[in-house]
Amino acid sequence: MTIQEIRTYLLQYFDPVELEGSGEVTIAGPAKIEEAIKGEVSFIANEKYIRHLSTTQASLVIVHQSVDVSGYITARSFIKVSDPYSAFVFLLQKFATPRTVARPGIASSAVIGESVSIGEGVSIGEFAVIGDGCSIGSGTVIGAHTTLLNNVSIGEGSLLFPRVTCYDGTLIGKRVVIHSGSVIGADGFGFAPQRDGSYVKIPQMGIVEIGDDVEIGANSTIDRATMGSTVIRRGAKIDNLVQIAHNCRIGEDTVIAAQAGISGSVIIGKQCMIGGQAGFAGHLELADRTSVAAKAGISKSFTEPGQAIRGVPAQPMRDQFRQEALVRGLGSMKEKLDHLEAELKALKSRE
Amino acid sequence: MTIQEIRTYLLQYFDPVELEGSGEVTIAGPAKIEEAIKGEVSFIANEKYIRHLSTTQASLVIVHQSVDVSGYITARSFIKVSDPYSAFVFLLQKFATPRTVARPGIASSAVIGESVSIGEGVSIGEFAVIGDGCSIGSGTVIGAHTTLLNNVSIGEGSLLFPRVTCYDGTLIGKRVVIHSGSVIGADGFGFAPQRDGSYVKIPQMGIVEIGDDVEIGANSTIDRATMGSTVIRRGAKIDNLVQIAHNCRIGEDTVIAAQAGISGSVIIGKQCMIGGQAGFAGHLELADRTSVAAKAGISKSFTEPGQAIRGVPAQPMRDQFRQEALVRGLGSMKEKLDHLEAELKALKSRE
Amino acid sequence: MTIQEIRTYLLQYFDPVELEGSGEVTIAGPAKIEEAIKGEVSFIANEKYIRHLSTTQASLVIVHQSVDVSGYITARSFIKVSDPYSAFVFLLQKFATPRTVARPGIASSAVIGESVSIGEGVSIGEFAVIGDGCSIGSGTVIGAHTTLLNNVSIGEGSLLFPRVTCYDGTLIGKRVVIHSGSVIGADGFGFAPQRDGSYVKIPQMGIVEIGDDVEIGANSTIDRATMGSTVIRRGAKIDNLVQIAHNCRIGEDTVIAAQAGISGSVIIGKQCMIGGQAGFAGHLELADRTSVAAKAGISKSFTEPGQAIRGVPAQPMRDQFRQEALVRGLGSMKEKLDHLEAELKALKSRE
Repeated sequence: MTIQEIRTYLLQYFDPVELEGSGEVTIAGPAKIEEAIKGEVSFIANEKYIRHLSTTQASLVIVHQSVDVSGYITARSFIKVSDPYSAFVFLLQKFATPRTVARPGIASSAVIGESVSIGEGVSIGEFAVIGDGCSIGSGTVIGAHTTLLNNVSIGEGSLLFPRVTCYDGTLIGKRVVIHSGSVIGADGFGFAPQRDGSYVKIPQMGIVEIGDDVEIGANSTIDRATMGSTVIRRGAKIDNLVQIAHNCRIGEDTVIAAQAGISGSVIIGKQCMIGGQAGFAGHLELADRTSVAAKAGISKSFTEPGQAIRGVPAQPMRDQFRQEALVRGLGSMKEKLDHLEAELKALKSRE
Repeated sequence: MTIQEIRTYLLQYFDPVELEGSGEVTIAGPAKIEEAIKGEVSFIANEKYIRHLSTTQASLVIVHQSVDVSGYITARSFIKVSDPYSAFVFLLQKFATPRTVARPGIASSAVIGESVSIGEGVSIGEFAVIGDGCSIGSGTVIGAHTTLLNNVSIGEGSLLFPRVTCYDGTLIGKRVVIHSGSVIGADGFGFAPQRDGSYVKIPQMGIVEIGDDVEIGANSTIDRATMGSTVIRRGAKIDNLVQIAHNCRIGEDTVIAAQAGISGSVIIGKQCMIGGQAGFAGHLELADRTSVAAKAGISKSFTEPGQAIRGVPAQPMRDQFRQEALVRGLGSMKEKLDHLEAELKALKSRE
Repeated sequence: MTIQEIRTYLLQYFDPVELEGSGEVTIAGPAKIEEAIKGEVSFIANEKYIRHLSTTQASLVIVHQSVDVSGYITARSFIKVSDPYSAFVFLLQKFATPRTVARPGIASSAVIGESVSIGEGVSIGEFAVIGDGCSIGSGTVIGAHTTLLNNVSIGEGSLLFPRVTCYDGTLIGKRVVIHSGSVIGADGFGFAPQRDGSYVKIPQMGIVEIGDDVEIGANSTIDRATMGSTVIRRGAKIDNLVQIAHNCRIGEDTVIAAQAGISGSVIIGKQCMIGGQAGFAGHLELADRTSVAAKAGISKSFTEPGQAIRGVPAQPMRDQFRQEALVRGLGSMKEKLDHLEAELKALKSRE
């Protein structure tokens, strides 16, 4: 792919795409700015890395349109766009070698139930088990050992890596990616306490609904609703080992980092960012664009959009930082207190 | 099912079961009080929801025997019991459509080892692997891809969802439910440090024993004992992504929420409640009916039964709440201190 | 195995190995000092357990070479070495009954891709799926349902328990143990935010490299690098449900306890100890031999080797303990402050 061809490719995402330097050089692939060699493309999205421009071996660097590259142009070319990071990501997608998760077609070892609808160009891997009444949209890939219990529906162009389990009734949208080991639709954790201290299981009769363009990491668990649906809305991204309990609703384009845990019936708005190992008490609401720090413990609703919260129990970032600073200052507070006590004593003794 | 039949069904669990209103109406299924439509049954367990009685469309509402329903009885019927929540749960169980985890019988693709004992009415799913010397009790269902290594024993009426792994020697009781992805009996995390900084693996020679009526969520891990047994006693309920290390003992009817982690050799009493993401240091004891808040870090034993503990490190709820209040009040403490300092200075300057 | 034979066996690890008492007795197996019966071997590694010497039924006790056993020698024998704990571990290894993870040879149900290289004495379990271009070293055992995507390489003498997933390109060393449910090489959690609030997936083009003698617990996740490698170096031990994000580097002989989470691009030195449920922000460095307490939240680098850190945010153990003590002392600080305020008021009123 020549630099000129890269410029043409990026024009589908950005306008303008300015080229400075030669467009003839062939680019073999992408690399980090410090590691790039001749024939590779890299990028600089942050001003503090601009110093690398004088040392990088990259033949092409993607930069922000505002960067003056005139001093660096002898040995390499530049493409200038409004968002060099995303431009580089689109290039990564272009250069990525396609991965084979399952061979084309339906493996002869896969077990397909009754009344299953399978779209065009679907691949189903070895030993996959597709339950009765399932529906799999065109172009979707199901990895080896993935099990769909009965009446699971998956939209077009989705990718389930090997060894995903979808319990009965799970609804999955288009272009959804689910990584290995995740369990979608297991029973919510609901038990009714009895007088003798034992528990009676509350039947978990609902399902899980996953919108389009959702990605779910490895070994995460999303429980079915007790009644109704646990909902992961379009575009949400969920990392590894995340727990999402029954009846939660996760908003569009919300991002949840690894090992976070969302208790039952929590409603999280859209475009939120949930840090790793954060934990939510049940039945809370989080407004749109809320940002939750890693390890936070959220014990009440935050209904004002756009807040950043932090701490255990979580409070607005500013209050939490002030509190943390006060705790760090406790030593000098104690010294001052002891000093005042001594002074007061001296004062009294002089009377 | 008519209301009269529902009353008869509930009489096996409660006495008395009082009916007010018509017993003739046929009930199609259960629903939440706000969402119920004509022909459905709902419940009210909490006084603050009694206001819904004037608006709900439900044809039958289960309420506590003390509730006076005389004002609401025109359009619907009531069943009055001592525990309306549990009564509703029993109705949910009655109305739940049975799920098919594996087809009846033993799938032809399943691999059954030597000297395996299989009870009557056992179902074993596709590609399940049953090791040598295993024993599976009557009526037990083993999902697809579930693997039992050698000499695993499972009692009657248990349900292992697809893709559970039980390591060799695991003993599982009756009516146990284990969800997809859980790993029972993997090696405890034991390594002996050597002088050069490396580690030698300590062979994990014990097993895991799981009592009757235990439920284990998805993707949880319960490690085998180094020697002897890791024990989960009758009726314990364990949520998703929970870690239980080697040689732990979890008491009867104890409930452990998602992502909690129990270190090696911890002994937890019966009827305890462990919150999500709580973590235990090793070799501790927790008395019966201890309640541990979410995210707590337990670093010592709590041997008095019935305590509620919270915080990192965990302490009795009351002490922890007092401490948290003091921390929240640090700002005003600091102000007061600064004020006293100024006053004292003024006082001294006047002398 | 007689006591004399045990002495000979231990001579390959220790010198000297002193025997006191008879060497003729046959030892049936190992046991804890409190539980050992006649014919069993146990050990005492800690002085505070020496009192057990007068009551234990063990026929052989391994003790430190400095222990004077002359008072206890009538009924049993002693072996004295420089490290009795490790000696006992080596004996456990000797006495451990070998476990069958997969039958010898390649199961007929396993699916082996094209251009796969399989060494001598390899066992591959039922329904395992080995992708194209994989390489499996001599003596390695692959459990049932384990899936290797394309071009995975595993060294000699490794053991993958049933139901491990290795994504394409994963490189695994010699004598590596991976427990059931772990996912090696899933995509790193990388998405580029777009102006409309949605995200574009950053292709994860790197791999995971695992060094020799690493052990990885059950249901852990180690993500592939965005570019380059996520690296787990020789001898590292990783417990259950641990998350290691893209581009991390974990040093030799570092130990990571259950449910810890390491964010992207974190570099951890060698011989570190990471406590359970600890969490790391991204792009940090931890020097060699750093010890991280359970539940710590590490938000900055610690570059001085050998530190112990603790707390959220983590700080050196000593600072954190002092801070925790100050917080615990807040109640009396407040009392003193109120007392001073009252005294000062009294003083002023007297003027």
